[in-house]
Amino acid sequence: MDMINFTVGPVQSSEAVRKIGAEQVPYFRTAEFSDVMFENERLVKKFAGAPEGSRVVFITGSGSASMETAIMNTLTPADKALVVNGGSFGHRFVELLQLHQVPFDEIALEPGTALKAEHLAPFEGKGYTAFLVNKHETSVGVLYDMDLISSFCKRNGLFLIVDCISTFLADPFDMASLGADIMITGSQKALACPPGVSVLVLSPRALQRVASTKCCCQYFDLQIALRNAERGQTPWTPAVGILLQINARLKEIDADGGAEVEIARTAHLAKYFRDRIKNFPFRQFPETPSNAVTALCPSTVSAYDLFLKLKDEYGIWICPNGGDLKDKVFRVGHIGCLTERDFDCLLEAFADLQKKGFI
Amino acid sequence: MDMINFTVGPVQSSEAVRKIGAEQVPYFRTAEFSDVMFENERLVKKFAGAPEGSRVVFITGSGSASMETAIMNTLTPADKALVVNGGSFGHRFVELLQLHQVPFDEIALEPGTALKAEHLAPFEGKGYTAFLVNKHETSVGVLYDMDLISSFCKRNGLFLIVDCISTFLADPFDMASLGADIMITGSQKALACPPGVSVLVLSPRALQRVASTKCCCQYFDLQIALRNAERGQTPWTPAVGILLQINARLKEIDADGGAEVEIARTAHLAKYFRDRIKNFPFRQFPETPSNAVTALCPSTVSAYDLFLKLKDEYGIWICPNGGDLKDKVFRVGHIGCLTERDFDCLLEAFADLQKKGFI
Repeated sequence: MDMINFTVGPVQSSEAVRKIGAEQVPYFRTAEFSDVMFENERLVKKFAGAPEGSRVVFITGSGSASMETAIMNTLTPADKALVVNGGSFGHRFVELLQLHQVPFDEIALEPGTALKAEHLAPFEGKGYTAFLVNKHETSVGVLYDMDLISSFCKRNGLFLIVDCISTFLADPFDMASLGADIMITGSQKALACPPGVSVLVLSPRALQRVASTKCCCQYFDLQIALRNAERGQTPWTPAVGILLQINARLKEIDADGGAEVEIARTAHLAKYFRDRIKNFPFRQFPETPSNAVTALCPSTVSAYDLFLKLKDEYGIWICPNGGDLKDKVFRVGHIGCLTERDFDCLLEAFADLQKKGFI
Repeated sequence: MDMINFTVGPVQSSEAVRKIGAEQVPYFRTAEFSDVMFENERLVKKFAGAPEGSRVVFITGSGSASMETAIMNTLTPADKALVVNGGSFGHRFVELLQLHQVPFDEIALEPGTALKAEHLAPFEGKGYTAFLVNKHETSVGVLYDMDLISSFCKRNGLFLIVDCISTFLADPFDMASLGADIMITGSQKALACPPGVSVLVLSPRALQRVASTKCCCQYFDLQIALRNAERGQTPWTPAVGILLQINARLKEIDADGGAEVEIARTAHLAKYFRDRIKNFPFRQFPETPSNAVTALCPSTVSAYDLFLKLKDEYGIWICPNGGDLKDKVFRVGHIGCLTERDFDCLLEAFADLQKKGFI
């Protein structure tokens, strides 16, 4: 049985991407592979709206690896960071700041709550140096107001690190106009490739910080990575196959009209689904949802039981939650190679479960 | 043109492994994926001859990532390590020990030189606590005498970390009888899967060290990884597709008779090739070669020029060297999905180049 995958990663890949997965992985210390990496860098910068002079590093590792890489290479105990913590990925930033001894305060938000000016006001003019946010707190599907954050950071001169792991190419984002210094994404989200690679886009200001920061881990040392990237290479053997798949996918998006078109496509699917779930006993969880995912609270069934039921009896993966939200919230992703027809299948399954009294 | 790949990673994959690469990557926070991970752990332990009570961690990252993970999670400034440095991977261990402030002495060997009892003798009974070695110093194709090292470590009570990245499943290795505490390998060597995953096998003694060592990096924290591995999961999104490919490959090896049979197959290919290169102007470089690779010094041409020539005109990748050895040494790998016929093609290309006066 072919599963339909509505999780938020790994997501479904296009034919072109999967075809590369079937090929022998080529040797990579070659000019040919360097050209692929240069093209990857160019297209990621284009789609992220990266400011002039930015650079891109591809890490073989998960999005969390790049979150930690960003902190290890640009923040130190001399910083004073402010971090939005509205779910498990905000919590991960908090843990990382603690581990790497970066002084910080957190803006703790109830899961699903929007970030508002009143949350930022108490921290105005208080000597902070850096701001960290998961633009899309994927665990609960909430999208934070980047214009609000951007203004605050500009006014206060803060170094801005944005986890865009699941929102890159799903919601609008322009690094240059927002003044973001680091943008992070991963291969298995809207890039719709297998998991294994994450991406850091570094602004000129981020590059300055990297140059003057000693990283405690060789594998994640961005000075070494940037030196190798000058010739289109990585210091350690990368996930070559996935980098080739990313290349195909970036070119696919570019040929289809670029980031705007891909974002509009995802927004359309999100709206299509949200318009059609009003008659089911599900409450939309976040105040301000991302196009990437719809997080829903079922009122008549455990969210996790619903996940298992759809997996085992309908061949459909929705995305379960962990921890406190395990029984309360499930998520339906809109990223990756999905069509209206796929959402119809899910809606039909919901209708069937409703008829049978499961929900 | 389909290239023939004789590099030492990425190597050629079997049909079964490539087929998985073409499939949609499944969601992984499931009991089904946990079962795959448990099976991967079981088979890796079996093929490594791991002692009772050992555990396995799969890292999404290169072999170097696992080398650093081993050091960060088991060695501290209270240790006194001894490290064999006979090439670029030995040098990497040295750099990592420096970065992580582990006191050490190195046994510096000329590249290609075998390790002998006389190299170890000066360090006997001198209060060392740990020993690090690249069993196969892949950069120059030299295989170190593990029996010699094992005896030395047992006599001196040393914690033994062995980089088996390119030698696992290519040369005999038995963790239990050698008393090795950590064995490291990678997905893209004899496991013949795409690069992106590396593997640590941890003996009970290694697990004790992990439990009492604070890791400076969350992503590589083995305490967290081991806790998640209890339920067949990883703390961060892993390279799910590659882990499924590793599963297929491990089962393939198991069905074909296990590690011994795979090692014998590789040994046969190495011998087949070495028996047939005697009439070419190439000198075998290492004193004690691994079955995984034949490192050769051409006497009439730059090794790197030969690499480029074979790549561009014959559709063949041999493995070039970097640094000082760039023009002096090239390598021909025997791991991965290769046959006698593939080596015949390479030998024919050498003969053609000889006829044309290129070598």
